[in-house]
Amino acid sequence: MSFRARHLLGIEHLAPDEILAILDLAERYVDFSRRTVKKSDALAGMTQINMFFENSTRTQASFELAGKRLGADVMNMAVAQSSVKKGETLIDTALTLNAMHPDLLVVRHNASGAVNLLAEKVNCAVLNAGDGRHEHPTQALLDALTIRRAKGRIQRLTIAICGDIQHSRVARSNLLLLGKMDNRVRLVGPPTLMPSGVAEFGCEVFDDMKAGLKGADVVMMLRLQKERMDGGFIPSEREYFHRYGLDAEKLAFAAEDAIVMHPGPMNRGVEIDGTIADDINRSVIQEQVEMGVAVRMACMDLLARNLRAERGAAASEVMA
Amino acid sequence: MSFRARHLLGIEHLAPDEILAILDLAERYVDFSRRTVKKSDALAGMTQINMFFENSTRTQASFELAGKRLGADVMNMAVAQSSVKKGETLIDTALTLNAMHPDLLVVRHNASGAVNLLAEKVNCAVLNAGDGRHEHPTQALLDALTIRRAKGRIQRLTIAICGDIQHSRVARSNLLLLGKMDNRVRLVGPPTLMPSGVAEFGCEVFDDMKAGLKGADVVMMLRLQKERMDGGFIPSEREYFHRYGLDAEKLAFAAEDAIVMHPGPMNRGVEIDGTIADDINRSVIQEQVEMGVAVRMACMDLLARNLRAERGAAASEVMA
Amino acid sequence: MSFRARHLLGIEHLAPDEILAILDLAERYVDFSRRTVKKSDALAGMTQINMFFENSTRTQASFELAGKRLGADVMNMAVAQSSVKKGETLIDTALTLNAMHPDLLVVRHNASGAVNLLAEKVNCAVLNAGDGRHEHPTQALLDALTIRRAKGRIQRLTIAICGDIQHSRVARSNLLLLGKMDNRVRLVGPPTLMPSGVAEFGCEVFDDMKAGLKGADVVMMLRLQKERMDGGFIPSEREYFHRYGLDAEKLAFAAEDAIVMHPGPMNRGVEIDGTIADDINRSVIQEQVEMGVAVRMACMDLLARNLRAERGAAASEVMA
Repeated sequence: MSFRARHLLGIEHLAPDEILAILDLAERYVDFSRRTVKKSDALAGMTQINMFFENSTRTQASFELAGKRLGADVMNMAVAQSSVKKGETLIDTALTLNAMHPDLLVVRHNASGAVNLLAEKVNCAVLNAGDGRHEHPTQALLDALTIRRAKGRIQRLTIAICGDIQHSRVARSNLLLLGKMDNRVRLVGPPTLMPSGVAEFGCEVFDDMKAGLKGADVVMMLRLQKERMDGGFIPSEREYFHRYGLDAEKLAFAAEDAIVMHPGPMNRGVEIDGTIADDINRSVIQEQVEMGVAVRMACMDLLARNLRAERGAAASEVMA
Repeated sequence: MSFRARHLLGIEHLAPDEILAILDLAERYVDFSRRTVKKSDALAGMTQINMFFENSTRTQASFELAGKRLGADVMNMAVAQSSVKKGETLIDTALTLNAMHPDLLVVRHNASGAVNLLAEKVNCAVLNAGDGRHEHPTQALLDALTIRRAKGRIQRLTIAICGDIQHSRVARSNLLLLGKMDNRVRLVGPPTLMPSGVAEFGCEVFDDMKAGLKGADVVMMLRLQKERMDGGFIPSEREYFHRYGLDAEKLAFAAEDAIVMHPGPMNRGVEIDGTIADDINRSVIQEQVEMGVAVRMACMDLLARNLRAERGAAASEVMA
Repeated sequence: MSFRARHLLGIEHLAPDEILAILDLAERYVDFSRRTVKKSDALAGMTQINMFFENSTRTQASFELAGKRLGADVMNMAVAQSSVKKGETLIDTALTLNAMHPDLLVVRHNASGAVNLLAEKVNCAVLNAGDGRHEHPTQALLDALTIRRAKGRIQRLTIAICGDIQHSRVARSNLLLLGKMDNRVRLVGPPTLMPSGVAEFGCEVFDDMKAGLKGADVVMMLRLQKERMDGGFIPSEREYFHRYGLDAEKLAFAAEDAIVMHPGPMNRGVEIDGTIADDINRSVIQEQVEMGVAVRMACMDLLARNLRAERGAAASEVMA
């Protein structure tokens, strides 16, 4: 097993063999969760704290179920109603939690970089569950697992990431992962929602959906994140769907066996037509959710192993 | 054991022998919870998700304790702060949860029929914890268990359901259950809070409390649900108590050994006098809460057995 | 083991040997939580309900982790969104919970005395997690454990409790505990935040920080609780820090090896300078949090033992 990190903060610093180690272990947890016996004891006796400064039902639920199925004690911190409101700083909140000896800390925060900052202050393993517009590594990993299961490989594919690129940490983490694995990535969306400097990631940029989808093996739609568009340009939903929403006509330009993905929650009729989302021959959207639990089980299992090894080494040193 | 259903959506489709099977198993869980050893492993390795679109401390707590005491991993979804707010549809939320492989889904929703709709979309067992004005089956079952323990039977009794019938799924589920078990049910309340068409349930309707309570074995008071009276007639609390609130004077018309019930939370001094509610010789209100945990344990245990049998059958088919 | 109480409602009625019994057991749980195996089964099969009428991330998290590490089923009641909002009384909420057969009830309430009132109505053990301006016994116990570990004793010390004494149940519980253990306690703060009648506790009162800190072994800072100052005098933060905030200059008046404490969450730059709070040679603030989990494990373990003994005795009586 070649996963060596202390934390899982982003895709950026993962090597391709670390990514593959996570995907391979996650495969085993998929089989596992589909059988009758659903519990493991990989995290028995360990404490996992979910600390969501931004609400997220699906990601928090996925991490909570993953932890419980591995036998961890899982605690959700209602951070929105917490000491943070009483003026406590992020660092003080982190130090306080750290003093309670958690083993795994799952953090979502609206500020890019906040999770990295927090990881420097604690003794446990930190998993980034999304920070600002920066990274959302478990989403990219679950997307990679879903693609690999549908296409038989996670290399040499043409993948179109479409829509609101600018506000999307999902796009950014996927871009990093797919680039490391030697795929052709295209970004498709309106220029007003395309960040500057994306060319340096080695991907092509398209303004037109039909051109961008042409021959693509994977069509990855993004949520139009109106809640992040503070003061900026907000497109009309009807106009947006007409030009950038995935419907049968646009999808016809992709490869015949192209799969359709979406990280959820979906705005049906805005970035994706409901019929496409529900078409079990094309859409793998439900499977993405399923892979989410398996990938998070794998990530936490691997981090827990590293943590135990580190503690064991420290204990031996003390005794020697 | 003759309980055959996949879901528990309402009393409507339960046969009398299924109702008795639930009550009999619940009796055993009552004994169980009063002894020192409080845990079973009937749901070990299973995942129970509580999804409350309407807040309800007592019902959610009762289901959570029931699941934990059966050894399930229980997850509460904070749906009020969830993806639903980001515009996700109920069906998409259900499909997302379903992809995480829960075994039991406990759902409360403010729309009548929403829980049935959801049950059609998922692979797990669904328990209705109250949907709009439609059904609240575990409440009716716990009421039946409480009555049977107090009266020695759940047949051939005269039961007066009193108060805000119109807004009450509790009344509706009780009416269905008590009717199936061959009891005489009376509905007592102001005409403005009496739904039309109740006569077809085969029950008598009374506008006057004293007439309605005359000789009753069971007096079941309902909460005045002001929060559901959108725009309609809202009675003054003082006037309501005077005419429909249960006090010693009105209770004197019931049978000498009549018991007093209330599903909670109570509005003391509105639909019930505090002295009556606290009279341990008449009131079984605390016992209703106690029976609630036992009944929910029984329902989840039975649904889990059916689920395992179904999965076992599916697995055999695959192997054959 | 000499801890005999049914509930832990305050320091007021604890004898010195009971306090020491809690601290001694907590020491063992500190060792425990720093080793690899983190779980005990002292509360296996037991149900702990956390009922926080006031939000408190750190105290609730500490109790939740303590319970889970002892093997209890822990349930958090979201009381802010609960039946209380539907007009249910505190007593009815308590009776309802009681009927669900919890073993341990952890309660925080904004009204002084509410937890004592509640304890009279239930059959389980009640732990006060803070009630109004009255008591916060586990905070005083964790502070005592932290002091004893730093100073080697919890007797014959000079301890300065500084700041917003008037609104602080932390100050009150500490004052009671430290007095019982034969220490010299000083209260230091502005006269407007000093309650009347503190002289009867046998402590000295100071308006001037330098005079109050002179030669102190322990400097215990309090949070300026603006959220409790309804309508009263609210000092300017800048002025407050200048006169009563702990900085290097004022701390220099304390004993050379004085430790600095704060119950959190801190207002950095208001009642304490950030540099002092982070100085690992003086500040034991993180250790206070760590001791919090150990102390709560000890308290719940001891109360559970008493509960089992009481139930065993009751069972024998029935059988005899």
